[in-house]
Amino acid sequence: MRFSEQLIKTTKEIPSGEQSRNAELLIRGGFIDKTMAGVYTLLPMGLKVLNHIVRIIREEMESLGAEEIFMPALQPKELWDATGRWDTMDVLYRVHSPDGSHEFGLGPTHEEVVTPLVKKFILSYRDLPRAVFQIQTKFRFEARAKSGILRGREFMMKDLYSFHATETDLLAYYERAAAAYFRVYERLGLTALKVRASGGAFSDFSHEFQVIADCGEDLIYHCDACEFAENKEIATCVEGAPCPTCAAGTIRVSKAVEVGNIFPLYNKFSDAFNFAIKNQDGTDQKVLMGCYGIGCTRLMGTIAEVLSDENGLVWPQQIAPYQIHLIQLGADDTVAEAAKDIYEKLQSKGVAVLFDDRTDVKAGEKFADADLIGIPRRVVVSTKTIQAASVELKYRATGETSLIPVQQFLDEPYV
Amino acid sequence: MRFSEQLIKTTKEIPSGEQSRNAELLIRGGFIDKTMAGVYTLLPMGLKVLNHIVRIIREEMESLGAEEIFMPALQPKELWDATGRWDTMDVLYRVHSPDGSHEFGLGPTHEEVVTPLVKKFILSYRDLPRAVFQIQTKFRFEARAKSGILRGREFMMKDLYSFHATETDLLAYYERAAAAYFRVYERLGLTALKVRASGGAFSDFSHEFQVIADCGEDLIYHCDACEFAENKEIATCVEGAPCPTCAAGTIRVSKAVEVGNIFPLYNKFSDAFNFAIKNQDGTDQKVLMGCYGIGCTRLMGTIAEVLSDENGLVWPQQIAPYQIHLIQLGADDTVAEAAKDIYEKLQSKGVAVLFDDRTDVKAGEKFADADLIGIPRRVVVSTKTIQAASVELKYRATGETSLIPVQQFLDEPYV
Repeated sequence: MRFSEQLIKTTKEIPSGEQSRNAELLIRGGFIDKTMAGVYTLLPMGLKVLNHIVRIIREEMESLGAEEIFMPALQPKELWDATGRWDTMDVLYRVHSPDGSHEFGLGPTHEEVVTPLVKKFILSYRDLPRAVFQIQTKFRFEARAKSGILRGREFMMKDLYSFHATETDLLAYYERAAAAYFRVYERLGLTALKVRASGGAFSDFSHEFQVIADCGEDLIYHCDACEFAENKEIATCVEGAPCPTCAAGTIRVSKAVEVGNIFPLYNKFSDAFNFAIKNQDGTDQKVLMGCYGIGCTRLMGTIAEVLSDENGLVWPQQIAPYQIHLIQLGADDTVAEAAKDIYEKLQSKGVAVLFDDRTDVKAGEKFADADLIGIPRRVVVSTKTIQAASVELKYRATGETSLIPVQQFLDEPYV
Repeated sequence: MRFSEQLIKTTKEIPSGEQSRNAELLIRGGFIDKTMAGVYTLLPMGLKVLNHIVRIIREEMESLGAEEIFMPALQPKELWDATGRWDTMDVLYRVHSPDGSHEFGLGPTHEEVVTPLVKKFILSYRDLPRAVFQIQTKFRFEARAKSGILRGREFMMKDLYSFHATETDLLAYYERAAAAYFRVYERLGLTALKVRASGGAFSDFSHEFQVIADCGEDLIYHCDACEFAENKEIATCVEGAPCPTCAAGTIRVSKAVEVGNIFPLYNKFSDAFNFAIKNQDGTDQKVLMGCYGIGCTRLMGTIAEVLSDENGLVWPQQIAPYQIHLIQLGADDTVAEAAKDIYEKLQSKGVAVLFDDRTDVKAGEKFADADLIGIPRRVVVSTKTIQAASVELKYRATGETSLIPVQQFLDEPYV
């Protein structure tokens, strides 16, 4: 994509009231636009990043044998009455049909839809286990919407639901799902802790995946030697105490961002919808369920917070909007031709390139934009590099810079 | 995918009140599930078909130089007040925040969001033309929701918006967009007419793309010799009259399904949001806009109606959920081994295969399921085909059947 042909420009202005670092960087870099508090548009580069995150999550969900579906956001009030959550879920938006005849919930989660749906197709223990997931827009009225896309009122979420005949099978799948979650974070360049937490409106307990970061809204109590970790809301230990699990470590307290949450639902929702199967011995038995969520846009915000520096965003190669940020320095014909030639050769190799071909912008502004946007490799073509038959390659993450002969640069493989 | 491992089964039951052929076939075949009137879940095979349709549409939108974005469904009331459509758009769902502090529209379309958004980045005539599109869930309260996914209350739509400095440029882009629409329909195996229609809440006039079909809710008056076509709501001619355009043809009246709609908005929305640019001569000028919609789920429903037969669905190869429906007939080891071998070889070639490996289902039921699901090629492995060192290949669309040597079958390219 040529910079001069794209709709979006970087900007120095951020909306009033926008306090979060992730929204500030993503708005200034042209990745998102704020429609209102907690509600954002994904601009072309933001959508590219999100799509990469979604692809990684999808691959890991498919590795769990889960099938992808797409459930509606409009949900009948009757389903929410059946679980008793119509009156208790304080984040639930209510929708009225224009003629006043019907009232709907605007899906903050999908247990109320997926349970009666899957019930239609599960007739006996032989049909279990099964798992379905979706990647879909969720709506939650968050009283505080001051954390950018870390806590949106409308956001993109992956939700997985699993169905089992036995507790053993449920708990084994729960562990496999947790392992898949760790793989997602690792592929995204994040280090997450698995933290025991309350189950809220879902279950007796749950596990959150937390990335330690100052921007986080959660406080976690975790051992500095073993995997013990609890959310403050259920923590039974205090800072500085010896670890109750391994005894060797000491309890630390850290601020953290929740980037995933898994719930062993057991029969909470199968009870509500009378979802039972014939067991092997002919008896009726409630189906056991688990649910597993990852906020895709929240992950994008977390990466913007955790992997950025004072100059801007620093995207991991796997999810960067482009692999190469090509900068033409100067407007004379030789430079323009050389830059265009490299751009076209990279394009024909299928490399994703953002080509800053602007001729009315100074070098300093181009470099600042490249730092802000955070594409992994910045490549400069100038009179100086042409004289050396090279390009100047700079890695955004490390700052490492080198002159590389043009052909050698073109021969390198890029994601 | 093995039939025995997938969640979804075909069914003979359809929900009460479901009158449309598309919903009946898609529900029976396991492509969609009805959550409530006008609101459906896309099941795994339905989502696969939709994703193929979306991919084709996306490619054609990108060929128009449009950049993909993703706008929110929750839209501030203030934006709808600015265009005067808060009180006039009868399909608009209203949402209240749980604390009663705010009221939102649930996006039936996105002019109110995209106009102020694009305005931020367009500073002069040099920044024009630009175009953005999205593929996103829309919400419209349709008083009648009896046409399955042809007229959903929640549905997937592609909406494209273009921005221009001059009327000449707007109208040229409008024609390019119309040509892209024709390419979409052609790639989907549909024949569409471009029909002049009213602009409704959008513009003075518009063009609809209509597929002639008995299930259609529109009546179109069209010439049997030239391209003249008008929607009944604006038609000035009568059935059987000579064509007012070419004089050679005669006016016919046909029922049709609208599968796209394009609007030359001119300055309707740039007026509302005071979206003006500095022109080349330094004067201020309103930006001219066009908008262009395709209902992606409606297209899926149209194809289900138009390309099906009395036995079930008939998917075009480009959008079929799988390319091959492999049927193992009989449960003995030789047949099971041979079928499994073919399944695995196709899988390793990257061919999308639905493998009916069920051993508790009779041949007739397997064949009926294959006809209902409508995958382009049905391939049977049985004792008889193994004796002939062949498979039996049947094309769903034509019924053409032949025995093909196994290796020859495996060597053929499939999408």
